[in-house]
Amino acid sequence: MTFSALKEECLAANLDLPTTGLVDLTFGNVSVADPERGVFVIKPSGVSYGDLRADHIVVLDFEGNVIEGSLRPSSDTPTHRYLYRHFSGVRSVVHTHSRNAVAFAQAGMDLPCLGTTHCDYFNGPVPVTRAMTREETGGEYEWETGKVIVERFRDIDPLELPAVLVRNHGPFAWGVTAAKAIETAVALEAIADMALKTLLLNPSAEAAPAYLRTRHFFRKHGSSAYYGQVNRPLPD
Amino acid sequence: MTFSALKEECLAANLDLPTTGLVDLTFGNVSVADPERGVFVIKPSGVSYGDLRADHIVVLDFEGNVIEGSLRPSSDTPTHRYLYRHFSGVRSVVHTHSRNAVAFAQAGMDLPCLGTTHCDYFNGPVPVTRAMTREETGGEYEWETGKVIVERFRDIDPLELPAVLVRNHGPFAWGVTAAKAIETAVALEAIADMALKTLLLNPSAEAAPAYLRTRHFFRKHGSSAYYGQVNRPLPD
Amino acid sequence: MTFSALKEECLAANLDLPTTGLVDLTFGNVSVADPERGVFVIKPSGVSYGDLRADHIVVLDFEGNVIEGSLRPSSDTPTHRYLYRHFSGVRSVVHTHSRNAVAFAQAGMDLPCLGTTHCDYFNGPVPVTRAMTREETGGEYEWETGKVIVERFRDIDPLELPAVLVRNHGPFAWGVTAAKAIETAVALEAIADMALKTLLLNPSAEAAPAYLRTRHFFRKHGSSAYYGQVNRPLPD
Amino acid sequence: MTFSALKEECLAANLDLPTTGLVDLTFGNVSVADPERGVFVIKPSGVSYGDLRADHIVVLDFEGNVIEGSLRPSSDTPTHRYLYRHFSGVRSVVHTHSRNAVAFAQAGMDLPCLGTTHCDYFNGPVPVTRAMTREETGGEYEWETGKVIVERFRDIDPLELPAVLVRNHGPFAWGVTAAKAIETAVALEAIADMALKTLLLNPSAEAAPAYLRTRHFFRKHGSSAYYGQVNRPLPD
Repeated sequence: MTFSALKEECLAANLDLPTTGLVDLTFGNVSVADPERGVFVIKPSGVSYGDLRADHIVVLDFEGNVIEGSLRPSSDTPTHRYLYRHFSGVRSVVHTHSRNAVAFAQAGMDLPCLGTTHCDYFNGPVPVTRAMTREETGGEYEWETGKVIVERFRDIDPLELPAVLVRNHGPFAWGVTAAKAIETAVALEAIADMALKTLLLNPSAEAAPAYLRTRHFFRKHGSSAYYGQVNRPLPD
Repeated sequence: MTFSALKEECLAANLDLPTTGLVDLTFGNVSVADPERGVFVIKPSGVSYGDLRADHIVVLDFEGNVIEGSLRPSSDTPTHRYLYRHFSGVRSVVHTHSRNAVAFAQAGMDLPCLGTTHCDYFNGPVPVTRAMTREETGGEYEWETGKVIVERFRDIDPLELPAVLVRNHGPFAWGVTAAKAIETAVALEAIADMALKTLLLNPSAEAAPAYLRTRHFFRKHGSSAYYGQVNRPLPD
Repeated sequence: MTFSALKEECLAANLDLPTTGLVDLTFGNVSVADPERGVFVIKPSGVSYGDLRADHIVVLDFEGNVIEGSLRPSSDTPTHRYLYRHFSGVRSVVHTHSRNAVAFAQAGMDLPCLGTTHCDYFNGPVPVTRAMTREETGGEYEWETGKVIVERFRDIDPLELPAVLVRNHGPFAWGVTAAKAIETAVALEAIADMALKTLLLNPSAEAAPAYLRTRHFFRKHGSSAYYGQVNRPLPD
Repeated sequence: MTFSALKEECLAANLDLPTTGLVDLTFGNVSVADPERGVFVIKPSGVSYGDLRADHIVVLDFEGNVIEGSLRPSSDTPTHRYLYRHFSGVRSVVHTHSRNAVAFAQAGMDLPCLGTTHCDYFNGPVPVTRAMTREETGGEYEWETGKVIVERFRDIDPLELPAVLVRNHGPFAWGVTAAKAIETAVALEAIADMALKTLLLNPSAEAAPAYLRTRHFFRKHGSSAYYGQVNRPLPD
């Protein structure tokens, strides 16, 4: 029994990063988890997307032990691992330094929910974490990064708010598949661009009303969703 | 008698959305109407542009009944339908979340007419709608969206002002063919980019004088137009 | 004796407009003059770049008479013609609605000379024209556009300052060949982008000192130029 | 014994300039040094990237004498030469007019270290030089440009801060190989874009804490680095 399907899903998502325009150079990585088997897979550190192959993908358990693979996993691996351990239902995590989302992270600002594009993906502002302390940064830094993310979600459901802005760093997004996590990361970057421009035009632009936000979010999510082809396959 | 010409026109216009850069992910849709036959056709909901085929396009009448097609029509269909019922002469409607136009919609600002690029397409500012109420949003939301658009055009001729910004949402554009509606949506996005940058350079930039606006608009539109090759075909 | 070389030069330059990113839709045109023969050639009005062929290019004399061609010339033809009559040494004119240059034109601001990229092309700020009057706009509008440009250059040498921003409209650039005029239009757009961003960072950013400006301009232009391969051909 | 490997490295890096989006027109050049042999090689002046071949690359010694090549070297050659003479360990220098970095140079601002993308490449703000005097500009201008760069690095280690912004001009970046210098120039431009947007959102955005900066910088550099595949080759 092998991990090849998991590795292929992870490879495909990592290869999407440069083509979506989310990633400059090698500033990004994707992991995919299989909670039933107790493992997740992740991009190796510093390997360029052009060189990446499925057998480079590293398999780890949720204690951080490498199960398969000869390369070092991404240096951000402990952050991904922390998220899998605390965000039940999340099966893939994407980390990028996409430029507009980074701008909000560096500005120390939540990404406000200004319109329906945002509401279609996030049921509220995308939160920014607090600054990490000297101790957190000097110690198990990437593990601590996961901790400050989870701390920020104390009162937020990660399945209704599938992204975060790590202060002075950048975004993490997640989802139930790698394709969905990538889609959320793409949407986040577009929404951050729109929000930046909105705030330049009108610094006191108001958030979309809560009733508009929930209408749009639940148009696409949950049991009352009516967006897309629920139970209707494309004809052959 | 079939709807294949209408479906092909609709398909081609929907496939133009990602190549024009107007649309991220699946944030857009185009419909085309045939008022004589009492129908319009529209993109199915949530189908990616890469998968879209002519036989996926859904045919409806102006009461909203599906005449042909096995897929759900776009969730925005009632908005398109409302516009066809009230904007006489409009044969195609395009909805996108193009980023610069969305910024004005989220800022709650009309797109001001600052120069001749704007005047070539719109005989006045592109209006933003009022915020929708809780009741409008909670009920037949997409139909009510059409209503607030038409309400905003009480004193505006939709053929001289072929686009609107729905507040906290984004643009709709229209025209006498799908190609023309798409062209207007492309122009709107470019104009919004220029206007944003103009206002950043000079927050009190003045609108183009009315005499310049009408000169340019009617250079391209109406019986005194002298732009283009009126009655002069390209040589073989 | 034919005008085919002139038409080919004009065609090639017009086809460069969409590939350089200067032009959305059909918002641009290029003309090329042959003063010795008393003619200039220009893009026909409203023909898309994809359809354009050399035999579509219209030949006119400097009185505005069509010498050859069955299509209407660009509606901006009288502006080009006015410039050829008054800017001695100019052999090609390019008009675009490139977005950053338009932003300065709409803001009513000269494009300030903030750095060496600017100095390499323009020996001073790129000037914006005054607003055109109701009478100028209502009459021979495009011819009057040429007049306000030339009025603005009363004390400026168009060969040292090969571009202008027409207020509420957009840029015209020129040069001794169509390739050079296009290059200047491309540089203008890049410089306007840089200047906009500079002013956002520092609204009181100072112009480059005059001694830096003339050093860079004359590094590339005139008898003391030392940029490029003067009299040194590329080896085979 | 020939310089062909050096020329090929230099050619490849120059050809990367337009594909990375760092360079408009011909606004950029790369040199590569071989200190052991006492030479460096550089792009010829004003040759377009499309025409460039390895045998066009000019070989010079550190006194500025041309050792090989029939074309004029880049007009910026004395700046590169000055940097090689003073920045020990630097083997390649890249000069561009990339737009966001130029904006900071024209604004006269250091590029502040606002987040981890910056920290991964630069152990501190990327410094801007002082304005050059009339005398410096009027004399051996390009050599003097090198001098003001080195003056600015009096208290900065160029291997920990591998780029500079020349005021009213643009960036130079460097590294131990041409590929690394290009990578740094690409990162610089992305970081400048992020920083500009951050400052637009929050003009008083604070620099990343020094402990975060050094953590990230030394994660990738020096003997305690743990990013990438140290001593672990990709499997065949």
